[in-house]
Amino acid sequence: MRIHTILVTAVIGLGAIAGPCAAADLSGNWTAQVTRYGQPQYWRVILRAEGSKLSGTWNESTIAGTITGDRVEFSVKEPGGRQSGSFTGEVTATGISGQGKLAARGGGAQGELQPATLTMTRVPNPPAGGPKTWDFEPKDFYSFYSSSVPPALRVFPGDTVRTWTLDDNGIDSKLVRRSPGGNPQTGPFYVESALPGDTLVVKLNRVRLNRDSAQGAARVKANLLDPAAIAGMKYADRFDVEWKLDGGKGVARLAHPTERMKDYTVPVKPMLGCIGTAPPNGQTIRALDLGAFGGNMDYNQMVEGATLYLPVFQPGAMLFLGDGHAAMGDGEVTFSAVETSLDVEFTVDLVKGAATAGPRLENNEYLMAMGVAGSLMESVQIATSQMANWLKRDYRLSENEAAVVLGTVAKYDIAEMVDPHYNVVAKVPKSALASFK
Amino acid sequence: MRIHTILVTAVIGLGAIAGPCAAADLSGNWTAQVTRYGQPQYWRVILRAEGSKLSGTWNESTIAGTITGDRVEFSVKEPGGRQSGSFTGEVTATGISGQGKLAARGGGAQGELQPATLTMTRVPNPPAGGPKTWDFEPKDFYSFYSSSVPPALRVFPGDTVRTWTLDDNGIDSKLVRRSPGGNPQTGPFYVESALPGDTLVVKLNRVRLNRDSAQGAARVKANLLDPAAIAGMKYADRFDVEWKLDGGKGVARLAHPTERMKDYTVPVKPMLGCIGTAPPNGQTIRALDLGAFGGNMDYNQMVEGATLYLPVFQPGAMLFLGDGHAAMGDGEVTFSAVETSLDVEFTVDLVKGAATAGPRLENNEYLMAMGVAGSLMESVQIATSQMANWLKRDYRLSENEAAVVLGTVAKYDIAEMVDPHYNVVAKVPKSALASFK
Amino acid sequence: MRIHTILVTAVIGLGAIAGPCAAADLSGNWTAQVTRYGQPQYWRVILRAEGSKLSGTWNESTIAGTITGDRVEFSVKEPGGRQSGSFTGEVTATGISGQGKLAARGGGAQGELQPATLTMTRVPNPPAGGPKTWDFEPKDFYSFYSSSVPPALRVFPGDTVRTWTLDDNGIDSKLVRRSPGGNPQTGPFYVESALPGDTLVVKLNRVRLNRDSAQGAARVKANLLDPAAIAGMKYADRFDVEWKLDGGKGVARLAHPTERMKDYTVPVKPMLGCIGTAPPNGQTIRALDLGAFGGNMDYNQMVEGATLYLPVFQPGAMLFLGDGHAAMGDGEVTFSAVETSLDVEFTVDLVKGAATAGPRLENNEYLMAMGVAGSLMESVQIATSQMANWLKRDYRLSENEAAVVLGTVAKYDIAEMVDPHYNVVAKVPKSALASFK
Amino acid sequence: MRIHTILVTAVIGLGAIAGPCAAADLSGNWTAQVTRYGQPQYWRVILRAEGSKLSGTWNESTIAGTITGDRVEFSVKEPGGRQSGSFTGEVTATGISGQGKLAARGGGAQGELQPATLTMTRVPNPPAGGPKTWDFEPKDFYSFYSSSVPPALRVFPGDTVRTWTLDDNGIDSKLVRRSPGGNPQTGPFYVESALPGDTLVVKLNRVRLNRDSAQGAARVKANLLDPAAIAGMKYADRFDVEWKLDGGKGVARLAHPTERMKDYTVPVKPMLGCIGTAPPNGQTIRALDLGAFGGNMDYNQMVEGATLYLPVFQPGAMLFLGDGHAAMGDGEVTFSAVETSLDVEFTVDLVKGAATAGPRLENNEYLMAMGVAGSLMESVQIATSQMANWLKRDYRLSENEAAVVLGTVAKYDIAEMVDPHYNVVAKVPKSALASFK
Repeated sequence: MRIHTILVTAVIGLGAIAGPCAAADLSGNWTAQVTRYGQPQYWRVILRAEGSKLSGTWNESTIAGTITGDRVEFSVKEPGGRQSGSFTGEVTATGISGQGKLAARGGGAQGELQPATLTMTRVPNPPAGGPKTWDFEPKDFYSFYSSSVPPALRVFPGDTVRTWTLDDNGIDSKLVRRSPGGNPQTGPFYVESALPGDTLVVKLNRVRLNRDSAQGAARVKANLLDPAAIAGMKYADRFDVEWKLDGGKGVARLAHPTERMKDYTVPVKPMLGCIGTAPPNGQTIRALDLGAFGGNMDYNQMVEGATLYLPVFQPGAMLFLGDGHAAMGDGEVTFSAVETSLDVEFTVDLVKGAATAGPRLENNEYLMAMGVAGSLMESVQIATSQMANWLKRDYRLSENEAAVVLGTVAKYDIAEMVDPHYNVVAKVPKSALASFK
Repeated sequence: MRIHTILVTAVIGLGAIAGPCAAADLSGNWTAQVTRYGQPQYWRVILRAEGSKLSGTWNESTIAGTITGDRVEFSVKEPGGRQSGSFTGEVTATGISGQGKLAARGGGAQGELQPATLTMTRVPNPPAGGPKTWDFEPKDFYSFYSSSVPPALRVFPGDTVRTWTLDDNGIDSKLVRRSPGGNPQTGPFYVESALPGDTLVVKLNRVRLNRDSAQGAARVKANLLDPAAIAGMKYADRFDVEWKLDGGKGVARLAHPTERMKDYTVPVKPMLGCIGTAPPNGQTIRALDLGAFGGNMDYNQMVEGATLYLPVFQPGAMLFLGDGHAAMGDGEVTFSAVETSLDVEFTVDLVKGAATAGPRLENNEYLMAMGVAGSLMESVQIATSQMANWLKRDYRLSENEAAVVLGTVAKYDIAEMVDPHYNVVAKVPKSALASFK
Repeated sequence: MRIHTILVTAVIGLGAIAGPCAAADLSGNWTAQVTRYGQPQYWRVILRAEGSKLSGTWNESTIAGTITGDRVEFSVKEPGGRQSGSFTGEVTATGISGQGKLAARGGGAQGELQPATLTMTRVPNPPAGGPKTWDFEPKDFYSFYSSSVPPALRVFPGDTVRTWTLDDNGIDSKLVRRSPGGNPQTGPFYVESALPGDTLVVKLNRVRLNRDSAQGAARVKANLLDPAAIAGMKYADRFDVEWKLDGGKGVARLAHPTERMKDYTVPVKPMLGCIGTAPPNGQTIRALDLGAFGGNMDYNQMVEGATLYLPVFQPGAMLFLGDGHAAMGDGEVTFSAVETSLDVEFTVDLVKGAATAGPRLENNEYLMAMGVAGSLMESVQIATSQMANWLKRDYRLSENEAAVVLGTVAKYDIAEMVDPHYNVVAKVPKSALASFK
Repeated sequence: MRIHTILVTAVIGLGAIAGPCAAADLSGNWTAQVTRYGQPQYWRVILRAEGSKLSGTWNESTIAGTITGDRVEFSVKEPGGRQSGSFTGEVTATGISGQGKLAARGGGAQGELQPATLTMTRVPNPPAGGPKTWDFEPKDFYSFYSSSVPPALRVFPGDTVRTWTLDDNGIDSKLVRRSPGGNPQTGPFYVESALPGDTLVVKLNRVRLNRDSAQGAARVKANLLDPAAIAGMKYADRFDVEWKLDGGKGVARLAHPTERMKDYTVPVKPMLGCIGTAPPNGQTIRALDLGAFGGNMDYNQMVEGATLYLPVFQPGAMLFLGDGHAAMGDGEVTFSAVETSLDVEFTVDLVKGAATAGPRLENNEYLMAMGVAGSLMESVQIATSQMANWLKRDYRLSENEAAVVLGTVAKYDIAEMVDPHYNVVAKVPKSALASFK
């Protein structure tokens, strides 16, 4: 844990504005990292310095304190008036370092005042000239989602990234192996000012083929079959599932088909099998898996033109993407889709202070709430509840009104059933919601 | 069981051709009912009488025997040559009655020769003039699927029936209560010559609104929600979910909407919530339930133009239908759809000797295999296996080829998740199958 | 439905006291069958006749009316004072027959006054001399649970029945086939005065071996195995699983064991795989299935000494039992247990007006609530909720107190996982409840 | 990934024997870490150096090569004769460093020769004097399972560790907070010579209370309740679930009970809720979760006297333990058990080259195979398959024989149903296996 903390601190330090900070400089936007018993948590802080008086906000709480030369001293009060923390610190080259106490947030010790170290860094301002477009050539590919690796690129909300991904097996657009496989990811992309509790918005501007070959599979994964039928199934020992991708005609066909399959074509619809942020609780999760952070969602609507909403669990969000599919049926029933590398362009944005409970997607036709869980039934439950919440919050419907909408027009897609978690998507057509705007 | 047997026997007797049968008359198509230890089973029999010699077929087995006046005597041989039965009988006014032994079919006693009573009746010939269209006014409505009630109408394969259904609550098109509710069914329709092991084909020619009002619901069924969220949900004590159906504009709208819902409209797409045959094993299953026999499948693609394939488990198939919906989202998440009575016209046909393992549906765009089971996962397993079987059998694909098709273009619909069994549908677009024809 | 109704009416008629009823005779206990739109429902009625004045109770409602010669006329008032019904009738040789209106009970028409026919019959009095012990030789065996067959024996609460069961395959203690199999049941036993809404209590006084052979199985049912492992499993084509039962030593051993199994013994613990009442909604459910009515619960604690509580869904409860097992592991993972015929002695009793939501069992050590559902998870949910209800109702615990008990001492048994529904049992040791008495 | 690799390399370096290695020294036991595309894998190597000739084994493959001064050069041949790798390296102060190629093991590139860096380190010899007992005072507590943190203690197979754990909320035996909670773990313990593919054996010699207080919970987790019942449940806003532990009497009682609970006692049976190794694929998994690596298994048989088998996924196994419970019902239905800190003593051992597919447990009475998965059903499937494998491998039963044993005597425990994965345990009594020894 110690190592993990040091890394994250360093990362944040790099993002801070260097140089000595005179007391007059403290006004502005900060990130406070509070570490207790080795575990960091984060707050969005706005400071206002007027002479020796320090005031401001600490998430939804308020700050009141004093500045004496390089020393700052302040307390934190909850909206209800209860004092939930107090700190003393020192202004340093990279921000403010200090000690104090803070009430525990969540967990079994909720409200308990705990000793804490404080590290405050300035939120960097986006460069002048507005959002930027980055051409990013990936070099390292990680087969996991994590905040334990350094960002590959730091971008600001509004920025656009043009990059590319390997296929699930680690092969790039030139057919060169770049990774041992396991859904190696491009990234992570650090989004400046993103903090746990925010929602990361990712608009997929372009998701395109960048080579003319793909790999697939020719057996239905056994968990999706009637168990009584499995023992009697007669699969061939070998079945060549190399695909040729004909971008011009927009179809995939088997490279070396059986007689019966020689004219079989699949419409190409390039999609990202994987896209996710760093998981909560400092976890490192392999890229075959998925969760509230996204990941290997394998949803065939994760295509050009769609906009994805993901929870931010770690500073900077740390966005990863990979596992391109030229085409895929629902559920990814053969475990592999038509697997290929892809060119991708996306634009990031941030909804600060508003968390999405899990991945949500939007295109011209649908709102789509994903339920990622250990069983289809739990996936349905999460997807349905999330979609109801979406309708209640963004369309100001009551519980009953949201239920009426779901009962009359909701649809479900089974995105994926072969990975360590299931992904079921509850969808509502935007046409049905037109009257609520 | 005795009672049950008597009823069924009587039913079959009514279908038989009356009058004394001279020995010379025995050639032709028969149904053999063999009853052992009180339980009937059925065979499709073709007899050829040449003088005193009797030959023919008994399903896939062969018959050899003799005719002596009114006495017949024959044995049954399996394709492999093993003798699996022998009977002696007497020609009666309604067919042939006899005694004998027959090898058990299926179950723990497979192959054991068991004492049996034999009742053979002629398969009636369809009337001259070709298929007929019936206008059927239902009078009795059964809230179950069963072969324990008399047929409401007897039709031949190829015949068309025009009729109507109550809504789920027992109300007809004039808003008159005709049943206490519980998805009361119109029928059962007895399809002449249908035997267990056949597939009943039902083409839905017309499924239309016949009144301008409907009832709905405004709470999501609790099993579909994140369990942790349920306790905090705030439903109103009352919420009026009467719907007005505007057939002209093709929409439904709330009759007494809240302010926020006053312009909310749902596209009307009339569907049959329920359609099914009599269940296997002499069961009587309430019409809220569903199974391999169909029933309360609540699939919003059960609409005009679709063709349904159902297993035949009892002589005559005994087709029931009801539970009209003007519209319904996937999964019927509020437990009630937009519930109304409907006018229905359908044409029946029969695939003899080929059983479908469960309900299958077809329209211009898709093959659809339904998986009806006690959990979403088992429903997926059955639907996937059935769809693979469909591709293998009707499109002559190998196990691997079928898997490639499923992996690249299969879709899943979650038809229904609120009734005693779940219904998940695996779909394959016909466009993808064009190259196999 | 008509047929069904007629049968049930007849059955009730048989139970009524014959002879002309003078007006003065009307006081006493009655069963009212009210039939609306072809569907019967039942009420427990007490009449008090004083001259021309008729009063009494109708379940929890009250009756007020008049008697004029053979004519009776009365209205029904709910506890809150609302009039929910009115009838006029005539005293007949078997009871009272009449017409009227009654508010719908449950369903979509709740409270709606509906036209009704009334058939009232006297509740027979138990014979003098106290509870009786019956030796019952079964002749007909039904492979289903249903109220559509006549009772095999009519007994009173408190009576004891000594009888025997076939094995699952229809073989009796003399190794004679008596049924084609499918868990053929002994019964049904009609318990006088039992009405829907009551709880039937069945004390298993004796459950014993009555022959020295049994049949088993030697493959784990595929739904219980890791799907990825199934294709690679190597079962022998044949494996002899005939068992010898050594009642003296209390063990079963394979009759023709492999070398490795030659000393393998299983402790004998005879249990009833099946025991159930007639299902709700007039259903006929095959004896392989199980539900709130009990049935093929396959719980290895259904042994001598245990007391079972079952819901009553049809008049007389209609108790069936069968499917003896000499021994069985949890879950019945090989689909067959050590299957044999059994001698059984049981005593019935009735808790009037208090329904159990599903099967509950009790022995010296444990309270056991069964959750029968379409998936393990739903079975757990039902079992847990039922056990919490049991603690709250019979041990007067609050919601929190019941939760503390469950969290600290509850156990779960997985009774059965291979039949059409799953059965999971939540258990609480009686020792933990000692302080609550 | 780079960071991760560096850490692990360093860790292994520390374990190596320092000092210059003359060519003559190369004979002996080594660990080879081969890193390709940033991802390390491990082999167990035995070298035999005879003059300039180098031979030996590389897991089940063989090594042949030459030694020239500090230079080594060798190739790797699979048992079938195929050359699967070749390396050149240099003897260094800490082992051998080199470069080469090695065939991919598993994954989409199976068999592909890939460029690799080689780091070989000597397997340290256990110190003279036999196994050692360590008294270990933990200082850092990690709320996750991971190989990304340094070992807290390095022990040899056969060694015994005496230590203690915090409660789930981070409180120690003196009631001092030492962690913010989330099942903080003691460890990790690095077991010398353990490599991925081995089985770690942990004998729990002592699991005892070390304080007299505990915390609990008083609500059943909503996912375990009938969804339809949840909205109507009436929990108190507060319910004090502090427990007093009376080690002398061996019971827990509520510290501030309600009137009804004032004599309620729970037998104390101290257990470890959490025990696990570092997960596969370099993952860091929070300590609330569980998997094939063990973790938060919450099984109330994880008590003093039991022996646990866990897969080794990372060098040294990296054993963590924590989350003491004074008592717990099956399934941990209230999400918290009777939570307390514990004193623990355990002995580790290693089964080299034989992997267990998941956690297995053994005590005097039972073999217990745990199925950890995303749903109860998948947990049952894994547990059943693992138990069948155990019987086949260690008791030399055929597939059918193992099925007969499971069908007749297997039991299931539902260990845990409230954490991110479910844990179901398949058990076989050792008494039933006596005849196989």
